[in-house]
Amino acid sequence: MKFDFPLKELPAVMRGPRMERRRVLVGGSAFWGTMIDEGAEAGCLRLDDGRRVDPDTLPHLPPVSPSKIIAVHISYSSRSLETRNKPRPTETPTYFTKPPTSLNGHRGQILKPADCKYLNYEGEYAVVISRTCRNVTPDEAWDFIEGFCPALDMGLQDFRDTDQGSMLRVKGADTLLPIGPGIVRGVNLFEQTLRTFVNGHIVQEAHIGEETVWGPHYVIADIARHITLEAGDVILMGTPCHSRSVDPGQLVECEITGIGRIGGTVTAIPAPRASALGVGHQPTDSPEVRRVALGFDERVPEHFKEALRLAKEAHQ
Amino acid sequence: MKFDFPLKELPAVMRGPRMERRRVLVGGSAFWGTMIDEGAEAGCLRLDDGRRVDPDTLPHLPPVSPSKIIAVHISYSSRSLETRNKPRPTETPTYFTKPPTSLNGHRGQILKPADCKYLNYEGEYAVVISRTCRNVTPDEAWDFIEGFCPALDMGLQDFRDTDQGSMLRVKGADTLLPIGPGIVRGVNLFEQTLRTFVNGHIVQEAHIGEETVWGPHYVIADIARHITLEAGDVILMGTPCHSRSVDPGQLVECEITGIGRIGGTVTAIPAPRASALGVGHQPTDSPEVRRVALGFDERVPEHFKEALRLAKEAHQ
Amino acid sequence: MKFDFPLKELPAVMRGPRMERRRVLVGGSAFWGTMIDEGAEAGCLRLDDGRRVDPDTLPHLPPVSPSKIIAVHISYSSRSLETRNKPRPTETPTYFTKPPTSLNGHRGQILKPADCKYLNYEGEYAVVISRTCRNVTPDEAWDFIEGFCPALDMGLQDFRDTDQGSMLRVKGADTLLPIGPGIVRGVNLFEQTLRTFVNGHIVQEAHIGEETVWGPHYVIADIARHITLEAGDVILMGTPCHSRSVDPGQLVECEITGIGRIGGTVTAIPAPRASALGVGHQPTDSPEVRRVALGFDERVPEHFKEALRLAKEAHQ
Amino acid sequence: MKFDFPLKELPAVMRGPRMERRRVLVGGSAFWGTMIDEGAEAGCLRLDDGRRVDPDTLPHLPPVSPSKIIAVHISYSSRSLETRNKPRPTETPTYFTKPPTSLNGHRGQILKPADCKYLNYEGEYAVVISRTCRNVTPDEAWDFIEGFCPALDMGLQDFRDTDQGSMLRVKGADTLLPIGPGIVRGVNLFEQTLRTFVNGHIVQEAHIGEETVWGPHYVIADIARHITLEAGDVILMGTPCHSRSVDPGQLVECEITGIGRIGGTVTAIPAPRASALGVGHQPTDSPEVRRVALGFDERVPEHFKEALRLAKEAHQ
Repeated sequence: MKFDFPLKELPAVMRGPRMERRRVLVGGSAFWGTMIDEGAEAGCLRLDDGRRVDPDTLPHLPPVSPSKIIAVHISYSSRSLETRNKPRPTETPTYFTKPPTSLNGHRGQILKPADCKYLNYEGEYAVVISRTCRNVTPDEAWDFIEGFCPALDMGLQDFRDTDQGSMLRVKGADTLLPIGPGIVRGVNLFEQTLRTFVNGHIVQEAHIGEETVWGPHYVIADIARHITLEAGDVILMGTPCHSRSVDPGQLVECEITGIGRIGGTVTAIPAPRASALGVGHQPTDSPEVRRVALGFDERVPEHFKEALRLAKEAHQ
Repeated sequence: MKFDFPLKELPAVMRGPRMERRRVLVGGSAFWGTMIDEGAEAGCLRLDDGRRVDPDTLPHLPPVSPSKIIAVHISYSSRSLETRNKPRPTETPTYFTKPPTSLNGHRGQILKPADCKYLNYEGEYAVVISRTCRNVTPDEAWDFIEGFCPALDMGLQDFRDTDQGSMLRVKGADTLLPIGPGIVRGVNLFEQTLRTFVNGHIVQEAHIGEETVWGPHYVIADIARHITLEAGDVILMGTPCHSRSVDPGQLVECEITGIGRIGGTVTAIPAPRASALGVGHQPTDSPEVRRVALGFDERVPEHFKEALRLAKEAHQ
Repeated sequence: MKFDFPLKELPAVMRGPRMERRRVLVGGSAFWGTMIDEGAEAGCLRLDDGRRVDPDTLPHLPPVSPSKIIAVHISYSSRSLETRNKPRPTETPTYFTKPPTSLNGHRGQILKPADCKYLNYEGEYAVVISRTCRNVTPDEAWDFIEGFCPALDMGLQDFRDTDQGSMLRVKGADTLLPIGPGIVRGVNLFEQTLRTFVNGHIVQEAHIGEETVWGPHYVIADIARHITLEAGDVILMGTPCHSRSVDPGQLVECEITGIGRIGGTVTAIPAPRASALGVGHQPTDSPEVRRVALGFDERVPEHFKEALRLAKEAHQ
Repeated sequence: MKFDFPLKELPAVMRGPRMERRRVLVGGSAFWGTMIDEGAEAGCLRLDDGRRVDPDTLPHLPPVSPSKIIAVHISYSSRSLETRNKPRPTETPTYFTKPPTSLNGHRGQILKPADCKYLNYEGEYAVVISRTCRNVTPDEAWDFIEGFCPALDMGLQDFRDTDQGSMLRVKGADTLLPIGPGIVRGVNLFEQTLRTFVNGHIVQEAHIGEETVWGPHYVIADIARHITLEAGDVILMGTPCHSRSVDPGQLVECEITGIGRIGGTVTAIPAPRASALGVGHQPTDSPEVRRVALGFDERVPEHFKEALRLAKEAHQ
């Protein structure tokens, strides 16, 4: 894959040393800290107050507070092949949004209402904006990136038939954007590999530098033509092939090598009270819903299908 | 038009006395105040600090600070007839979003980039949420409404061909949501009439109680089934028939009787720098773009067309 | 104690039924919910999504997001007697501020740096503002109250000698404002009793209606003469007698009957790195510091001293 | 004056080229832009959308959105000499706070209630924090500075007698912090001169590098020992000698050479309604109030007194 706007030199946000910032809850108190990557304390989180803590034992808050979240529809060649049978999805990227209330922290609950069948994972990397950005070129755009996060752009495909393409109810429901565990600078994103796991089995895999059609600099320059991006805003960069539906109890994770691994557990909740009154579009099990939720299997590598089958078995 | 969930009694937010709150800039200082509706000082704005000022001479800031903005696609029977040839557009409402950066104050500039042709007005009323709201019934939803504002849901139709239905670039560009001049409680919304004006000529008109398919209580209950609405969040309630394109220099206004009249002036800006580099979807003049931008004239009252013709003449 | 502005009737915010809202973390996901006060599920938290959870097992986030936090210096007659030997401290209330970064959730860590000796508790009730408020009378002020929370206005008394009375470093350090567990409406505050506990022993006690000099309506009207209060802003209403210093490992709690019980654990952290370089005022053990930190024992009921002695023994 | 922590090299935030960002209102629309410093368009503001506008004709919004504002009491040797008769005020800096509601834009109204006599100017420079900052050394602190702004730390000295040193009512009232017109990077702050003007007459003057006792890096490191500073937070760096009271109609300005010049007009407003009911501390004309408001004239250069006399004459 060749970017439309190749790098002239490695941008500062991708030059080392690596730095990962996390926000964790200790008791009821939220603290920011920096991950220790080397030495005897590698794997510890050094809170800003000087203490070392084990992040694996602590609840994580999302490491971002965006005023808006914009997502690329398709930017991986494998996803484009799967859904459109061509390696480049469209001439130029297209976008939708997720509301800030969809944000979720590491190891959170990903809610699946009782009347919904299809909650699909999409492993992605997210870009976080560092300062007000409007009307920039792709080359300039790198200076407006704070860092990168692993993310899961979950979707309630039962609502695929409504909202005329905006996917507000598919992608916008509460908890459908696990992001973190931290925000990372100092890693060459284009040398990394994205993998999604269900109950530990790999179900998506893509080399970011080789399989993404547009880099974050291109996407920022594209959006900022008409929309001001503000500090903290988040852009989700799309998913590779083999998005599938998961069930309550399953653990979904997305790892970007060098960046981190975000996880969340699918959790059942009651159907909304207003749905029982007949308010609003009801979850639907139409051919179009099933087509997207269950996937385009003829174009997906066999081992992904096997992994998902194993994950489902393990869960049952 | 009969609502799916008719009112049992007039909700508190629609019971008098009327109260309108505005936020204006005096010099470089922002002040909140309450409009005086009666007596010798009627039409004055009483700033909270006790001063009376003339609001017609002062810049207005948007009276809302939403974390998200959700818009109904179609909820007026006339718009449904115009675009779909039936009085009820869909079984249930569908939605898209606008980012907070699209907010604009009263008498603001509505930006039209030099490489775009079609910037359409859509006069609407907006609903402002008063407190955290999730999983409520239509009857309960009234208690989560802070008040109502006139609004203009402007759209750059040159981008109708991209974003696969989310309309991010159509509806989400900076300044495309003039809202205000104030936020109003104590008025029975369903007895009011919405009118949109271009250079003073009426180009849209609808009686809210008789022509809207769903009330704000229904829409809140629908969205809050899956998405938490937060204090300050804004819902745009759709537009009646005859959305059309306007040009730089034209004044666009939306009045909701009893609520107020928001206005803004279409203003030309240069094409984005990244567009010149070939970045992103370029504004397009396709049949689908023209169909929406120029309208569905065979189904629109003759006098609206005449008004828009006059507005264009006056401008040239 | 007689208020300067007695109630004409019980304000809406103090009329039942009681409602308590909490924000908890389940996994890494934050959810709002309402406490169930009666019936078989009493003590459960009903999340807005419909699930019942046991709040005792969940991390709590602060139930408020203020843009400013203002605290009354002294408004309890017992505290006034203790520190000034007269039942009414001053003609009118006086105030200081705490930054939002001092906020802490229920069961959080209250940080005590290694080079500090004196971290004093002060049990208080907090008032939360519901909407923009400026230039109101005490009677009107009730309509601007969202609800009440228990709170602990902790203070690092080692910095009593600096900041010329603003107490920025005494009261403003991170984590020094545990607040929650929820925000409560529908309880007559003036019939409640405040109690502070250290390791379960009562160390402060006061009947709010009988021992506070000014009600929240008076304080809001006083501050809002010159300062605009915004939705979510927090006012801390002062503490009764017997504020004392606590040590790492001790559990501090404040209960307001009918409202709730907030708790946090004193936790040691390293001294700041800049302190080792000689930057800034160093923690000091002066007579004035000791006077406030260790208290005015001759005017405090004997049983409070005993309780604190027991709490210290239990801890050692 | 010699800093406790002298610069090892010029920090990035003070290395050129100069960049000034402003936020202005055009009609009711807010836009960010960058000042053009050189060439034919010098003095123009280049909005991010590509347009050039004349900033002198436009309302300015504050260029910052802080979650907290912390102010140094005294850090200029001339102010220390004036008030304390020694060139270094205290061993280490001391602080107070102003609430975000005190923020005011360029050319705003600075409110003086009808029952107040003494509204004092204090010209200052402000430091804006770029990202979360806790537990840093003075050398590290430079990396957490976004830029600098001129500011006026106005004070209603009629309330000097209350609030026990926190100065909440002196310094915290609405509009008492004009800041801007822009936020500036790329200028060596320590080579600049601060001047305050009343109706165009110089009434304060100080060379920042030679007369300030502590640099911003020291102050950030000091505060961040215990308090987390967040992106957008503002620190006010103190004022030189000759703070005096101004009257309605007078124009107050503070210029930092190389950075900019902020101005505001003193404006009379009615006394608060609650004051008429006897609520709260009433403005007082005590010896202590007069001492601070009218100044310590024996230690002030003669020409400042003359300038202020001329400004008052011009105004009458």
